[in-house]
Amino acid sequence: MSNSYANLMQMKKMLGNLDAWLTKGAESAATRGFDPALLLTARLAPDQYTLPRQIQAACDAAKLAAARLSGTEPPKHPDTETTLAELHARIATVTAYLDSFKASDFDGAEGRAVPLGFAPGKVMSGDDYIHEMATANFYFHIVTAYAILRHNGVALGKADYIGGLTWRDA
Amino acid sequence: MSNSYANLMQMKKMLGNLDAWLTKGAESAATRGFDPALLLTARLAPDQYTLPRQIQAACDAAKLAAARLSGTEPPKHPDTETTLAELHARIATVTAYLDSFKASDFDGAEGRAVPLGFAPGKVMSGDDYIHEMATANFYFHIVTAYAILRHNGVALGKADYIGGLTWRDA
Repeated sequence: MSNSYANLMQMKKMLGNLDAWLTKGAESAATRGFDPALLLTARLAPDQYTLPRQIQAACDAAKLAAARLSGTEPPKHPDTETTLAELHARIATVTAYLDSFKASDFDGAEGRAVPLGFAPGKVMSGDDYIHEMATANFYFHIVTAYAILRHNGVALGKADYIGGLTWRDA
Repeated sequence: MSNSYANLMQMKKMLGNLDAWLTKGAESAATRGFDPALLLTARLAPDQYTLPRQIQAACDAAKLAAARLSGTEPPKHPDTETTLAELHARIATVTAYLDSFKASDFDGAEGRAVPLGFAPGKVMSGDDYIHEMATANFYFHIVTAYAILRHNGVALGKADYIGGLTWRDA
């Protein structure tokens, strides 16, 4: 399996974990007696994205990585979500998009020239793009979303963050 | 270059970024007129690690990934740091350790059987370990350290987080 595809499958897994954190957030709000929608106003600093915007950015990071590394046009997903249900749906949409690829769609992706909108006239190699931009940026938004929920008292732990692992017999 | 080695070089880069965030944190404290050491008491939730412990965990995540993927014994780095200077030194120590490897030390690492202390009798493949554990865990602590500084008013932005990118002419 190409490293590009393995990275995207890991992003898909982490988006599934994020979906479960959101569900735990809503349960925590219900238990503590406040409107779960209040979690959607939360952010860690006044000049940083709110929880919904972090989720939208994580979804876009995965979507753009898949499109750029496969050399295809990404679908447009306008950032219109304002409810927990809509955020769950956004995660489901990008998960289905990632599932629409097969491993061979990324054959040679590491050597592909990846242009980025903010740097006209320049490209990154697919391999550099995966490590320096796609993975780093994806985890930025995933971990910040987790941190916002933890900061607001949602009982998440490292096992929720990491999720299941692929074990083999020693 | 193997994907394992490329991942470790990206971790090294992010540790360099983290080092710069710490410096900006100290500068921010000086500008705002409080003791920079107060930042070392900060955490995002009462039951989450403080900033120094996040930094130590990020350093260990990189160190353990290098050791496990090269099939070598990691050095011990006891978590004794209590000052900003000592945290900078910890980052420098693990950076030098990462630099002690060459790309060929990770030949075949993706297929290596990686045991983890908390799962006796089981192993992960090197490839699964990189994506599911090493990278995810490393970014968890790196981004949380960043988030703690941002939450405490240190003026960091996405460019500080991502750092320099490897561009080529289009």
